[in-house]
Amino acid sequence: MIYFDNSATTKPYKEVLQTYVTVSEQFFGNPSSLHKLGGQSEQLLEQARQQIANLIGVHSSEIIFTSGGTEGNNLAIKGTAMQHRNRGRHMITTEIEHPSIYEAYKQLEQLGFEVTYLTPDENGFISAQQVKNAMRDDTILVSLIHVNNETGAIQPIKEIGDFLAKFPKTYFHVDHVQGIGKVPLNIKESHIDLCSFSGHKFHSVKGTGFLYVKKGVTLSSILTGGSQEQEIRSGTENLAGIVAMAKALRMTLEKQSQMKSHLIELREQIMNNLHQIDKAIINSPSYNFAPHIMNVSFVGLKPEVIVHALADEGVFISTKSACSSKSSDVSRVLQVMGKSDQVAGSAVRMSLSYENTMDEVEKFNNIINEVIAKLYKVTR
Amino acid sequence: MIYFDNSATTKPYKEVLQTYVTVSEQFFGNPSSLHKLGGQSEQLLEQARQQIANLIGVHSSEIIFTSGGTEGNNLAIKGTAMQHRNRGRHMITTEIEHPSIYEAYKQLEQLGFEVTYLTPDENGFISAQQVKNAMRDDTILVSLIHVNNETGAIQPIKEIGDFLAKFPKTYFHVDHVQGIGKVPLNIKESHIDLCSFSGHKFHSVKGTGFLYVKKGVTLSSILTGGSQEQEIRSGTENLAGIVAMAKALRMTLEKQSQMKSHLIELREQIMNNLHQIDKAIINSPSYNFAPHIMNVSFVGLKPEVIVHALADEGVFISTKSACSSKSSDVSRVLQVMGKSDQVAGSAVRMSLSYENTMDEVEKFNNIINEVIAKLYKVTR
Ligand SMILES: Cc1ncc(COP(=O)(O)O)c(C=O)c1O
Ligand SMILES: Cc1ncc(COP(=O)(O)O)c(C=O)c1O
Repeated sequence: MIYFDNSATTKPYKEVLQTYVTVSEQFFGNPSSLHKLGGQSEQLLEQARQQIANLIGVHSSEIIFTSGGTEGNNLAIKGTAMQHRNRGRHMITTEIEHPSIYEAYKQLEQLGFEVTYLTPDENGFISAQQVKNAMRDDTILVSLIHVNNETGAIQPIKEIGDFLAKFPKTYFHVDHVQGIGKVPLNIKESHIDLCSFSGHKFHSVKGTGFLYVKKGVTLSSILTGGSQEQEIRSGTENLAGIVAMAKALRMTLEKQSQMKSHLIELREQIMNNLHQIDKAIINSPSYNFAPHIMNVSFVGLKPEVIVHALADEGVFISTKSACSSKSSDVSRVLQVMGKSDQVAGSAVRMSLSYENTMDEVEKFNNIINEVIAKLYKVTR
Repeated sequence: MIYFDNSATTKPYKEVLQTYVTVSEQFFGNPSSLHKLGGQSEQLLEQARQQIANLIGVHSSEIIFTSGGTEGNNLAIKGTAMQHRNRGRHMITTEIEHPSIYEAYKQLEQLGFEVTYLTPDENGFISAQQVKNAMRDDTILVSLIHVNNETGAIQPIKEIGDFLAKFPKTYFHVDHVQGIGKVPLNIKESHIDLCSFSGHKFHSVKGTGFLYVKKGVTLSSILTGGSQEQEIRSGTENLAGIVAMAKALRMTLEKQSQMKSHLIELREQIMNNLHQIDKAIINSPSYNFAPHIMNVSFVGLKPEVIVHALADEGVFISTKSACSSKSSDVSRVLQVMGKSDQVAGSAVRMSLSYENTMDEVEKFNNIINEVIAKLYKVTR
């Protein structure tokens, strides 16, 4: 099996699962319980929080645990909207966000908020100038994806953050779900107020995630109740998942520092091969790209046919993002980049992790060449 | 160790953890991915949904997976409020709800909704007549806890549901988090529209839960995004957690049918002993009570002191509910039942599961007698 769908989800590391089981068995107490078992659970919870905070260079009180990236994005956006609606009702985002941002904003529009959606250039990039032009007195939030989940385009977060630092009443929210462990991002230096992470994208178990909430930033909660997580996110803590996620993050960041060039080398081999395929149109940018995401259109072929044909050969890739793969629409992200419906409707995505090898890449190149050639023969 | 804090959380069954690991390893694909791995995950997801639906006697399309009870309650309440706010802005609940209901309503009040909070009688019961009296033309939702998490009082859900069935535009939401597996509830016959469940209360892993959403009931989503779970709850599915939860539910319901009288017998022994302790005031009702929750006040003793003294003997119980155990306030639930601050401020809760034994109960009775006697001596 060659698994090149790591942006949809990753396989949990063996050690991460072991940690999950150990914690579930030995620290099953509710961290909110006053007794010893509860106290031990709470201690472990705070250790995991501290570990994660250290790994991403923030303070432990700035980490709010969530059930995943979707919750983190919804909490950042709706939490800001509800908390600060009397200060302003304007928000800025882009047309190339993940549905968990895009649809959250669409929902807020129905509640009377005004949203500016920035359009990317033909390479999929948003500029700091665009954000500047869109800013208003009543802008309370700017949301931006760091690494695009479909194309791998890296947005100029630092530049935009530097600009937004002059507007302390406008929060800056970054979706770092695809970037973490692959593309460095300095949260503090980039003046980010809110930053979302999802565990299952870096070999943690599913149902885990966290939101960075900068000290001083106030949010209305969307999951209200027993006041866990500084009253920002209630609900009995998924302690085993949280400790497992801390471990997965540490392991992933270690691999990132030890295997810096590994993904770049794999990507280069794949891209070199794709460039030689007739009719292949590369949708990922040729600069400011993440090392693990590649998007390519084979005009005239249906992407689901490609995905299934490759799966028959034991190769797993995606059409667009997993989240929207079941709606038959063409890719919104590629469309707003100005691609034709033909191109936007025939794209597939390969996404790598540190677990992938050069051997897999070589096999992949042979398989995709054969499969594409065969499919074009059939459709001719 | 004698663990009598099962209403705070339960220890996951060994078999449930095994299932979790197997699914995490072998079915790690994203159910939304089009390829074979995704397809296998999706199939397993739908099997788990079908299994859970069968176990509680509803249709599989009526099950929405969540991260736990808090999310289920928030989704039911806020989802109804946002979806149906143009039809009406009045909602009915009680003063004895779990914080994940109570605080969600408090939040909605700030958004312009009007909420009626029903006061229980001195035994902790709400009557159907109270609901009838509170109903208005613009009432869009009634939320009620089935088994109270602090006292174990069982509310007359069926009677209230029968009444509400005449008001098809008013949804009936029940918090069954403490009841499932302990106190039977026929969802269909009780005319329930929305019903919340939390996995970790019935020996599943934490971070799992589901909301029953009756066919035809429409909700606005609070976690918006990739359109999973019929667009009601987006986010990559926690498949391993979901399959593990289905197993935990099956095992728990099997135990419920095989060990019907077990909890009742354990409870009786504990209650008989408590009744003999001087100054012990029983706060749980003497009729319509759940077999696994007992609430008692030892006037003059600080509940956290009792909890710690018992923990030193290897016995684990709670002050009030776990969720609010860290705020030093007296119990809101006991207060609104008309208990004095002295009584409401000195309550502890014992909560059982099918894993507890008569041997544990006998040891517990001896230990609590000694501990309470010693504490009264010290405070005298
Ligand atoms: C960029 C981005 N943001 C958010 C998410 C949502 O994360 P999750 O699946 O954990 O809800 C995803 C993945 O689905 C993503 O790729
Ligand atoms: C009655 C009741 N409802 C809801 C909840 C919340 O469930 P969870 O801890 O899964 O968020 C709990 C437990 O904390 C509860 O006892």
